[in-house]
Amino acid sequence: MATQANSVPHPTLIEVDPFIPADQQKGIHNRWHPDIPAFATVKPGEVFKIQCVDWTGAQIGNNDTSDDIKNVDLTKVHNLSGPIAVEGAEPGDCLVVDILDVTPFEKMPWGYTGIFELNNGGGLFAREFDSKAAKAIWDFHGVYATSRHIPGVRFAGVSHPGLIGTAPSAELLATWNKREGALIAEHANAVPPVAFAPNAVGAYVGQDIDAKVRQQIYEEGARTIPGREHGGNCDIKNLSRGSRCYFPVFIKGANLSVGDLHFSQGDGELSFCGAIEMAGIITFSTSIIKGGIEKFALKQPIFLPSPIDPLYSSKVVFEGISVDYHGDGKQYNMDATVAYKQAALNAIAYLMKVGYTREQAYLLLSAAPIESHVGALVDSPNACVTLAVPTGIFSHDILPKPEGFTKQDFGQCAIRSDGIV
Amino acid sequence: MATQANSVPHPTLIEVDPFIPADQQKGIHNRWHPDIPAFATVKPGEVFKIQCVDWTGAQIGNNDTSDDIKNVDLTKVHNLSGPIAVEGAEPGDCLVVDILDVTPFEKMPWGYTGIFELNNGGGLFAREFDSKAAKAIWDFHGVYATSRHIPGVRFAGVSHPGLIGTAPSAELLATWNKREGALIAEHANAVPPVAFAPNAVGAYVGQDIDAKVRQQIYEEGARTIPGREHGGNCDIKNLSRGSRCYFPVFIKGANLSVGDLHFSQGDGELSFCGAIEMAGIITFSTSIIKGGIEKFALKQPIFLPSPIDPLYSSKVVFEGISVDYHGDGKQYNMDATVAYKQAALNAIAYLMKVGYTREQAYLLLSAAPIESHVGALVDSPNACVTLAVPTGIFSHDILPKPEGFTKQDFGQCAIRSDGIV
Amino acid sequence: MATQANSVPHPTLIEVDPFIPADQQKGIHNRWHPDIPAFATVKPGEVFKIQCVDWTGAQIGNNDTSDDIKNVDLTKVHNLSGPIAVEGAEPGDCLVVDILDVTPFEKMPWGYTGIFELNNGGGLFAREFDSKAAKAIWDFHGVYATSRHIPGVRFAGVSHPGLIGTAPSAELLATWNKREGALIAEHANAVPPVAFAPNAVGAYVGQDIDAKVRQQIYEEGARTIPGREHGGNCDIKNLSRGSRCYFPVFIKGANLSVGDLHFSQGDGELSFCGAIEMAGIITFSTSIIKGGIEKFALKQPIFLPSPIDPLYSSKVVFEGISVDYHGDGKQYNMDATVAYKQAALNAIAYLMKVGYTREQAYLLLSAAPIESHVGALVDSPNACVTLAVPTGIFSHDILPKPEGFTKQDFGQCAIRSDGIV
Amino acid sequence: MATQANSVPHPTLIEVDPFIPADQQKGIHNRWHPDIPAFATVKPGEVFKIQCVDWTGAQIGNNDTSDDIKNVDLTKVHNLSGPIAVEGAEPGDCLVVDILDVTPFEKMPWGYTGIFELNNGGGLFAREFDSKAAKAIWDFHGVYATSRHIPGVRFAGVSHPGLIGTAPSAELLATWNKREGALIAEHANAVPPVAFAPNAVGAYVGQDIDAKVRQQIYEEGARTIPGREHGGNCDIKNLSRGSRCYFPVFIKGANLSVGDLHFSQGDGELSFCGAIEMAGIITFSTSIIKGGIEKFALKQPIFLPSPIDPLYSSKVVFEGISVDYHGDGKQYNMDATVAYKQAALNAIAYLMKVGYTREQAYLLLSAAPIESHVGALVDSPNACVTLAVPTGIFSHDILPKPEGFTKQDFGQCAIRSDGIV
Repeated sequence: MATQANSVPHPTLIEVDPFIPADQQKGIHNRWHPDIPAFATVKPGEVFKIQCVDWTGAQIGNNDTSDDIKNVDLTKVHNLSGPIAVEGAEPGDCLVVDILDVTPFEKMPWGYTGIFELNNGGGLFAREFDSKAAKAIWDFHGVYATSRHIPGVRFAGVSHPGLIGTAPSAELLATWNKREGALIAEHANAVPPVAFAPNAVGAYVGQDIDAKVRQQIYEEGARTIPGREHGGNCDIKNLSRGSRCYFPVFIKGANLSVGDLHFSQGDGELSFCGAIEMAGIITFSTSIIKGGIEKFALKQPIFLPSPIDPLYSSKVVFEGISVDYHGDGKQYNMDATVAYKQAALNAIAYLMKVGYTREQAYLLLSAAPIESHVGALVDSPNACVTLAVPTGIFSHDILPKPEGFTKQDFGQCAIRSDGIV
Repeated sequence: MATQANSVPHPTLIEVDPFIPADQQKGIHNRWHPDIPAFATVKPGEVFKIQCVDWTGAQIGNNDTSDDIKNVDLTKVHNLSGPIAVEGAEPGDCLVVDILDVTPFEKMPWGYTGIFELNNGGGLFAREFDSKAAKAIWDFHGVYATSRHIPGVRFAGVSHPGLIGTAPSAELLATWNKREGALIAEHANAVPPVAFAPNAVGAYVGQDIDAKVRQQIYEEGARTIPGREHGGNCDIKNLSRGSRCYFPVFIKGANLSVGDLHFSQGDGELSFCGAIEMAGIITFSTSIIKGGIEKFALKQPIFLPSPIDPLYSSKVVFEGISVDYHGDGKQYNMDATVAYKQAALNAIAYLMKVGYTREQAYLLLSAAPIESHVGALVDSPNACVTLAVPTGIFSHDILPKPEGFTKQDFGQCAIRSDGIV
Repeated sequence: MATQANSVPHPTLIEVDPFIPADQQKGIHNRWHPDIPAFATVKPGEVFKIQCVDWTGAQIGNNDTSDDIKNVDLTKVHNLSGPIAVEGAEPGDCLVVDILDVTPFEKMPWGYTGIFELNNGGGLFAREFDSKAAKAIWDFHGVYATSRHIPGVRFAGVSHPGLIGTAPSAELLATWNKREGALIAEHANAVPPVAFAPNAVGAYVGQDIDAKVRQQIYEEGARTIPGREHGGNCDIKNLSRGSRCYFPVFIKGANLSVGDLHFSQGDGELSFCGAIEMAGIITFSTSIIKGGIEKFALKQPIFLPSPIDPLYSSKVVFEGISVDYHGDGKQYNMDATVAYKQAALNAIAYLMKVGYTREQAYLLLSAAPIESHVGALVDSPNACVTLAVPTGIFSHDILPKPEGFTKQDFGQCAIRSDGIV
Repeated sequence: MATQANSVPHPTLIEVDPFIPADQQKGIHNRWHPDIPAFATVKPGEVFKIQCVDWTGAQIGNNDTSDDIKNVDLTKVHNLSGPIAVEGAEPGDCLVVDILDVTPFEKMPWGYTGIFELNNGGGLFAREFDSKAAKAIWDFHGVYATSRHIPGVRFAGVSHPGLIGTAPSAELLATWNKREGALIAEHANAVPPVAFAPNAVGAYVGQDIDAKVRQQIYEEGARTIPGREHGGNCDIKNLSRGSRCYFPVFIKGANLSVGDLHFSQGDGELSFCGAIEMAGIITFSTSIIKGGIEKFALKQPIFLPSPIDPLYSSKVVFEGISVDYHGDGKQYNMDATVAYKQAALNAIAYLMKVGYTREQAYLLLSAAPIESHVGALVDSPNACVTLAVPTGIFSHDILPKPEGFTKQDFGQCAIRSDGIV
């Protein structure tokens, strides 16, 4: 018969409390550095779980104002759980990681999407909109999310780690710091900044380590904001539960770290903290392909997508080209970023016709399972990008009908307590 | 009983011969201008067919060298069939176009994908590869394409018009010419050029019109290379047979033109003439939504995708960020185009491990139903873009396996008769 | 350049006229028999086309009464094009057939779905409904079908041959005739009949053959109504254009025949002539797997589905069990046919709430891309079968909403000229 | 900030221990009867969780023999959690149930699929195979299952409740007992039985109730084996997490019960206990549509499928007709059950060519996400049913290739300790 004895749960290698600031917890770190020691070690083939705080480390609350977003301390992000060493992994290998599941904590069935202030975080339209803090709280109902701040919408989560990667070698870390330093130097006073140099303020490694090593990690450690050759903060929504990812290994043990769990996200994650951010639990197993970097010409991870990513076949698709026709009309040269922005602005304008506020639409496109394809990148001077909004996530009809829309009132998302949007 | 009398075929409004140069045929034009008169007029609701030559107007042959690509005359492209006026359409309206079918001519069951010379056309990697002309001929076997130049591959076509749009108003045309002119001025000697100014050389309108009007069209008419607010050469693979598109109307009658039919294309269309280019037949019906531009905040077309776009659920996905790590290692600032390029170069390097040549891989990624998603555009400084290669289009296994690949020999695509690649 | 010389169309091996009775045409036959000689021969790898009349051989017209359905001559069906011999195929082999395309004739862009009279053809609910002839004419608009007889519906076709198979050996034919004869004997006076014995009346082979052989074929030839070990009239909607089928070979050359082309069909094809029947053109290529019957334990064809079958992800699913609760309430023993019928009757009742007549609903479920799954066959005594109706084929909302339906008036399908339904 | 105070977990209304026999636990029952009192009551809109033991109530262990299957006590099944009353639900209403999630217990990450003895449970091929007990234990790795008893296979679960339904009214219960009693009477000595009459032996209601009421429930309560008008044991794999189901309400409060959770199942669930049976947790929310039975002509539940059901687009599809060509060759009359069986036997024979034993193949088709469609039910005398095996669930290639299969050795599933299969 079924007994506890013949039922062995998968071990949890890192346990965290989502309600305690991250920098008071073990097994968390928030910089990339080869000298952060492995917090735990696994054998290839083992199934194990890792718990993660949300990316900010509990800074954001389940409430109806966005003041916490406004005042968020970004020196402390992202909070990663790890590193996990894999026995036998060596530089030049490929670490195969099965992302077996990604779920919220049962005790914390909610997450949030935020629009960050122009001066504290930004986002894709931070300048265009002169962004003020705003947010939507999402309630998790099993596989679905809904928000009291964006009524009329429900969708299945494409849950994934926004941030996952192996540790860089010292050499790779130096490359990052050098090239990003050059970019920062080029755009010295940009708001928001174009990149983030190492910064000891807010740095954290939740392990007992030698003080000198710690100091070095804090001073040299790469910030976690961008994705890089090792993976990192790629925010690829389809790197979701059920996917299999192939990471290059740069140091002995590979030292995998993970965090920034997302219940859902749209392609582009446009409002910066655009996914549905959550604390939660990720289940992994790993294997090693010896010499995999050479075998697969691996300069960055590759992955196999999940068979259970949400499928919504009916969509309204918006196009964008690399002309800023929502702004000053400037012609850009084959710039896919500008094209994506136009497609997104077209979608926002459309959803405003339906009745959502600009902030709600911006948050929704960031958080829902939006698909954005690169249409074409060869038709000079206009890159073309599309953005597809699934119709099945709405409880009302958003298809373009001859009669147009009777504008509904969906209220507003959570805004600053001073009322400024 | 079934009789000819009770069976009414859909009318063909423009007939062309795919084997005759485009500039000898009626109903074809290759510039955008409001004064090109409607070649035919339809009522809303009518189903009708339009025949199209391939985009070059029969310049490329079904043979095994790429000399025709090398020497192609690009002043003559793209050859469009039209314009078709729709009764009742007025500026401010939305023209709904059902793309009911897109097929090759029965008498011409083949198409081509080309890599263009750096100095004559270019392409996404024209500079990186110092591109020499190369091509693949694709044979159409019903819904599938295969190529003797890229063995081991077969896929279903996501057939679509690369180029479709309504006519611009005089005002809109002036805007285009002004903004693109400014970009050209900025990059005066770029190779390949960053954009294409109006050019009377090669211009063509296949109708009897007043010579002065003709001259004006030739001198002012916008080139067809890029997509713009009216649609145009967007090269969106999912604007495929079965999709419904909503175009803004800028002049009375809307004046729809179409061409550059593709049997298939990957997201990005990377080798410039990266789709499987074909001559063929497109079937349409239309309707009008009065005041649709206002109703849907329409600054560029929107569309509803087709339920019969090819579905290949198993994929290998490549990532790219906005660092040119395949080149000089430069850090770009949130540049999705650079990120797309890295993802594509990663995929090319992978396919070369499988056994394809760089040219074959480049052509294949351009032509096959590749999906490219914008991952994230907010993680400064790195945009992240993914590119997914379906495994089901190969007759051999391309999944990353522990043993790596036993490199196969797939020969080479069609190259120049002087053997230079 | 593109020329007629370098463009070779795929050959058409059998040409027919869809407006001429089938029994006046070459290359058509309507019985299964090993002695019907090959009408044409192909080599493995060749791409070729076969034209087909509709299954009745032009008996049904594009008009607004169902009298032609009422009076259809069923001794003459199904009209098949073939046989096509494949060089090298021998008994015991597996004939691989690529169904590369299935399209209507350009000159005949319409088809029909019929409810047949209880006394002349029947159908799944012939007895329950005491069926009177009714029909819907479908207009083909590219990849879509719509019907003036069932307004508010449009769907992409999952076009396929309802009937395709290799020729039986003499031994296999004898087995068929024996086992079906026994069933007929058991249900001597069933209306409609439970099976159809060989019948020289209406039999036809459109080739010049020896009179004695002809007579033997007519007297012994198996009727084409059911599917059997060789394929035959399986009416599997997903054996569609783009699929690859593996047939057992029973005689030298395999002798493939095909007909009963369907523009679309729902799982179950419930109204007997439930698909959208059409005349049209099918494109094939073939290959041979020596000894394939043994290699794959092949007792009946297997196939690989097409990547372009229509995808409608949103559905309303109806359940049915093996209790005739729509009739006399009888409990059946694990009978999936009864269960399917309840699911279909539940769907019909639902669509009648929406506003369709029973006849329209019956025709629609037969013709549209309905998915019917076997739920479970082990929960004694109730088999459970589901039937899924895609919501995206309707121009109005058929999801179950709290307010129920405001019954619309969709008129009626084509009925008998005497007005009896 | 995120705090426990602003994080409210969804309540668990029924808690069970998966390692304790079901008849020692509260909130469990194993018969259908209107007089079983509600164990808990919810308001429409509430999200809540229900825990369930596996259907046998812990009788089956995680080990490598099938003796527990052989000796299972089937008078005690299925163990259901409930009933849950919904405030405001009345007869004639429709109870909308959102199946928000279905997961195993974290402490019991495994399940099983069993072949039952001919004399104790049976299964679709119990007689054909003279079934002896066998089983496969499946390990749950996040969203995936694998089995040491069926190597080379991994698939994502389409997790669902095999059994869910509202309570019958006294009248409906009487109808069930009468009609099933008549069937039993007709097949008095069938092995396995054709149906199961009420049986006080093994009956259980885990609540404190009046002894007389209890006795009545035990004597009259319908067995849970089959699905019926209220839902019940339909074993529909797509009634999965993420689906929304519309149940008819027969008594005040609706009284919903649920159990028999499946991690995965194939269409047909052929080996009787063919799903991957598990203990676990189901998350629900509900709403009421007043008068819904009338509004939707509801004779049995309808449902909307989930957007996250596993998608494996590449499949090998097997056909079956209603001729028992795997047995005595008998011709059946339009019998979809016989047709399903042939398709399944064809698939089993094919998988045996690949290298699996008959028992492994039987278990695999039962448990994996197999799709079985009703092809056609109108081509007398042969019903046609298809069964599709996804290729992506295998770590090796099962596509039919010219060279056939090199038979691999996959060992054997768990069998009886006496070694009899």
